[in-house]
Amino acid sequence: MRVAIVGCGLIGGKRAKSIAALGHTVAGTADAVPERAAQLAKAYPGCAASAGWRELVARADIDAVVVATINDALAAITLGAVRAGKHVLVEKPAARSADELRPVAAAAKGAGVTVRVGFNHRFHPALRKARELVDAGACGPMMFVRGRYGHGGRVGYDREWRADPTLAGGGELLDQGVHLIDLTRWFLGDVASVSGFAGTFFWDMPAEDNGFVCLHHAGGQVGWLHASCSEWKNLFCLEIYGRTGKLQIDGLGGSYGVERLAYYRMLPQMGPPETTIWEYPGEDTSWNAEFRDFENAIAGTTGTGATLTDAIAALDVVAAVYQQSDRAKRAA
Amino acid sequence: MRVAIVGCGLIGGKRAKSIAALGHTVAGTADAVPERAAQLAKAYPGCAASAGWRELVARADIDAVVVATINDALAAITLGAVRAGKHVLVEKPAARSADELRPVAAAAKGAGVTVRVGFNHRFHPALRKARELVDAGACGPMMFVRGRYGHGGRVGYDREWRADPTLAGGGELLDQGVHLIDLTRWFLGDVASVSGFAGTFFWDMPAEDNGFVCLHHAGGQVGWLHASCSEWKNLFCLEIYGRTGKLQIDGLGGSYGVERLAYYRMLPQMGPPETTIWEYPGEDTSWNAEFRDFENAIAGTTGTGATLTDAIAALDVVAAVYQQSDRAKRAA
Amino acid sequence: MRVAIVGCGLIGGKRAKSIAALGHTVAGTADAVPERAAQLAKAYPGCAASAGWRELVARADIDAVVVATINDALAAITLGAVRAGKHVLVEKPAARSADELRPVAAAAKGAGVTVRVGFNHRFHPALRKARELVDAGACGPMMFVRGRYGHGGRVGYDREWRADPTLAGGGELLDQGVHLIDLTRWFLGDVASVSGFAGTFFWDMPAEDNGFVCLHHAGGQVGWLHASCSEWKNLFCLEIYGRTGKLQIDGLGGSYGVERLAYYRMLPQMGPPETTIWEYPGEDTSWNAEFRDFENAIAGTTGTGATLTDAIAALDVVAAVYQQSDRAKRAA
Amino acid sequence: MRVAIVGCGLIGGKRAKSIAALGHTVAGTADAVPERAAQLAKAYPGCAASAGWRELVARADIDAVVVATINDALAAITLGAVRAGKHVLVEKPAARSADELRPVAAAAKGAGVTVRVGFNHRFHPALRKARELVDAGACGPMMFVRGRYGHGGRVGYDREWRADPTLAGGGELLDQGVHLIDLTRWFLGDVASVSGFAGTFFWDMPAEDNGFVCLHHAGGQVGWLHASCSEWKNLFCLEIYGRTGKLQIDGLGGSYGVERLAYYRMLPQMGPPETTIWEYPGEDTSWNAEFRDFENAIAGTTGTGATLTDAIAALDVVAAVYQQSDRAKRAA
Repeated sequence: MRVAIVGCGLIGGKRAKSIAALGHTVAGTADAVPERAAQLAKAYPGCAASAGWRELVARADIDAVVVATINDALAAITLGAVRAGKHVLVEKPAARSADELRPVAAAAKGAGVTVRVGFNHRFHPALRKARELVDAGACGPMMFVRGRYGHGGRVGYDREWRADPTLAGGGELLDQGVHLIDLTRWFLGDVASVSGFAGTFFWDMPAEDNGFVCLHHAGGQVGWLHASCSEWKNLFCLEIYGRTGKLQIDGLGGSYGVERLAYYRMLPQMGPPETTIWEYPGEDTSWNAEFRDFENAIAGTTGTGATLTDAIAALDVVAAVYQQSDRAKRAA
Repeated sequence: MRVAIVGCGLIGGKRAKSIAALGHTVAGTADAVPERAAQLAKAYPGCAASAGWRELVARADIDAVVVATINDALAAITLGAVRAGKHVLVEKPAARSADELRPVAAAAKGAGVTVRVGFNHRFHPALRKARELVDAGACGPMMFVRGRYGHGGRVGYDREWRADPTLAGGGELLDQGVHLIDLTRWFLGDVASVSGFAGTFFWDMPAEDNGFVCLHHAGGQVGWLHASCSEWKNLFCLEIYGRTGKLQIDGLGGSYGVERLAYYRMLPQMGPPETTIWEYPGEDTSWNAEFRDFENAIAGTTGTGATLTDAIAALDVVAAVYQQSDRAKRAA
Repeated sequence: MRVAIVGCGLIGGKRAKSIAALGHTVAGTADAVPERAAQLAKAYPGCAASAGWRELVARADIDAVVVATINDALAAITLGAVRAGKHVLVEKPAARSADELRPVAAAAKGAGVTVRVGFNHRFHPALRKARELVDAGACGPMMFVRGRYGHGGRVGYDREWRADPTLAGGGELLDQGVHLIDLTRWFLGDVASVSGFAGTFFWDMPAEDNGFVCLHHAGGQVGWLHASCSEWKNLFCLEIYGRTGKLQIDGLGGSYGVERLAYYRMLPQMGPPETTIWEYPGEDTSWNAEFRDFENAIAGTTGTGATLTDAIAALDVVAAVYQQSDRAKRAA
Repeated sequence: MRVAIVGCGLIGGKRAKSIAALGHTVAGTADAVPERAAQLAKAYPGCAASAGWRELVARADIDAVVVATINDALAAITLGAVRAGKHVLVEKPAARSADELRPVAAAAKGAGVTVRVGFNHRFHPALRKARELVDAGACGPMMFVRGRYGHGGRVGYDREWRADPTLAGGGELLDQGVHLIDLTRWFLGDVASVSGFAGTFFWDMPAEDNGFVCLHHAGGQVGWLHASCSEWKNLFCLEIYGRTGKLQIDGLGGSYGVERLAYYRMLPQMGPPETTIWEYPGEDTSWNAEFRDFENAIAGTTGTGATLTDAIAALDVVAAVYQQSDRAKRAA
């Protein structure tokens, strides 16, 4: 497959590396900062930087496009690529809002191309293993999910693009919270109703730095989620409860700590559960696994990657929380 | 001090032991099951079992009464003891509801006696240390609190008194959740508004087995709390966030794991926080500390023990969640 | 099976409980303190206390004897029971020395009875699982074992019988160290040579409070063991290394922490190993498992329980360390 | 200070960075591979690469030399630099053997220059804090130290220079074990006698891959140390026991896990100790701290850095273990 990269920052670079590692060709690059496109292109033989993303996605020799820009450009570039008949892997959250994303989904359907959204946490080994266990019935019917995800920012974080709702579409809830929402939907299914609160507690910025979300799922389950960028020690934790067992995922590697999955299996006599823990101290393999899944999706196999429908559903949750918070603020 | 025990179960026995250890006299006992009162009385020289709590609290030689019955009798016995001019230490939640408790508070005020409510978690060493750190400004102004508390029940749990709202006044939210609510108020102050959900996911009982609560405090802080008796591995975790640091308390000893407090202090350059952890592997000292605080309160020193005002506030939160959940169920 | 208990202290009581739980009859008791024998007998219907162990082991209705006295009487009572034609489960270390134990082994062989030695750590779930993994080749050929075991004593520990070499036969190396030696032999096989040091660092007693042992096994493996009763935080840790993996057992429950087994499997590309951890938070099941194994041994099935040969081998190691330490002290 | 770097590999590069960060000048470089010297020089303005180390250490404008080559050249270059009147910071173990190092110490004494040996673990924050606690009497008089240090190598490890005793001077005991020996001496003082064993269990190489050492210190304390490069999960653990407390250091950052120090303080009533833990999740600051200490040593302040006397003592221990192992092999 010949793949183009639009957006040549940290994530674009990781995607390129993964694409090459899987035997595909990094065929072209584009970036709002031309030097970055040129520099990434240099690392891959035969890869050419384009002056703009429009020219790049129009190239006939390109099969698929990775869109890894900041949020405000994700939807437009994805739409352009789709209209040019390309398959697209667009980074999460795929758009600043669900409203921005709905036309993309319609266009993709019309064009018959495959679009996947880079909710790469689904491809972390602890989460893949959790999914397997749930699918195998290891926890029984689902009851609820608790999620906590956060980091502590860095000096000047409130001056970065993520602090600007015009560029980012929202704050912490849209940035890390959307992963929790996507993962919870992945385990608990469709969301029936939402309540929540997005507030700015610490940083000097218009975007929220904390998002609290309670999801009521169609099957009666509850998702209870909190994302924070005033989480002083980096943290990722997802707890998944079924009628006969619990799964707990901690860590994502690096500063989030070693990734691990604990499985607590209830015994007929109840009391302390049977406990098995898997740790994943190795390299982050989620990028390769996700791209492989994207390939398979293009080939027609439904895999585990998030679709535009998934992304729209997650963004709808975010929008609902924002509306409730605004209403609450106006009322106060 | 000469102390009477009403309710001679597990907790009544612990209170008696602690009273004697502190040099006071366990002077009388009463229990709905007379044999239990007699058996506890036998363990303390000069201690007599009364036929009923009314006779016991009327005894002229009694200075203070510990009320450790099941929930449906807590308020009435406390009221009786207060009217008899006794100081009272009543186990949490002190009543089945705030409405049941308000007349007790009025009577106590009128009688000029001291009433404290046994929210003993305030006296666990990790929580006392956390409180000291917060009071010393170690975390800066408070932002939010996350709390998770739960156990996995036991075979037949849904046939015990805690499963019967008539006896218990509620379910898990009232049982363990009320501790989280009390502790959160202790750190964040008065509650301005509440949203939440109480649901029954696992057990075959009318009472809820899971309570989810979002508190908005008067100072703008948020409490984000979940209590569960389908928490398959016993868990207690309270995370307290200020502008310059985080405190995390895990465990309560025994099956909840070793109690520990972690203090994450943000550095000017941000990044990984300075981290100090205290572990408390020893015996549970909360009972003695709480009773000592009760003595001091009688002597006129405001301590850390919960008052009837605190208990009413916590029960008001529970009632608000129950109302919202009922409304949601009727709407659905 | 009708079983007699000689030595009715803490361990004798645990054995009785386990025997009854497995459907056998606790038929008689004896203890140097007659009241203890009487009290234990009272708990089991039809069980009678004898005036002395000699009368008890002579009773025709007794099939097997549990010997759970302090160390100075273990060998003599076991010998007496064996000569009376009884099967015996004798607590570790089975004697004060290998020399004391050799005649017992000879007599047992002559009498055709089964004797097992209560090295109950072999029956802890983490160790059983470790054994299964090693037997299944999960770690490849064995290379070395590291063991650390210890506790911090208690006030007056140096005035207890364990501090008196005449009663105990030795100190910490004989008490907890012998477990490490037995477990290491269980995984690495026969010991070819020993070096080590037993010293008294903290306690005011003639027995050693720390034993350091290096075992060279017949197959070239090394055991590297340390036992201590000035180990301020209770600790049990056994690390087992094979050419393709490592097993680590931590904890024994209670004050030693939750028992757990970690399995680190080397991958062909090396780097961080594949990691799986099992935790055993439940009740201590080793006593029942060990007695079941004793039953099976009587019935002719070779199980995992330690034999007199195993105990003699472990005591030979202890004796070798004591000799080297004495020689070193005389030389100094 | 104007500093020259001899040996421009990974460690030489780290030293250069640290020197510049502290406000000194990286004035010259040399390496057996001239390209490496040139490349490192390029990174520092005004820094020139020399054709060989002899020319570099002879330069009049150089105040101090960092020697960061592989082991076979450490002693000779240090000697040359000392004779040229330069202060030297030489990486551990400073030589292939104590015999190689003694003339260097004599020359340094004669030349009146300062030499420090890069046992940088002394400068890790957990170890510095441990040292402060011990110096403040927090653990009482020292009793013994247990140390475990190891890694799992990598594919082809037995073909690297560390596998060749001619280049390295020894194997794992000299490589990582020497850190344990140095740290133990730092806490327990002079070594009076040594026993130990160096063996090759896994790797196909003449050098040992495991070293087991028992140190008897002049004050009666014991050091019980094991270093391994068939330690499948990277591990660093040092446990320091005094009469009234224990310190445990785990981790060194990176693949060795977060560095942490636990302090267990015994209470008069004994039982579970008072427990305080410090974690050091940040960047490795040992390099800067060690160089600062080197500066202070040059200025005449005795600091915590290791001297040639310390290195000779540690290498003497290694040599003693090698002799005993050779003798044992010949005897077998």
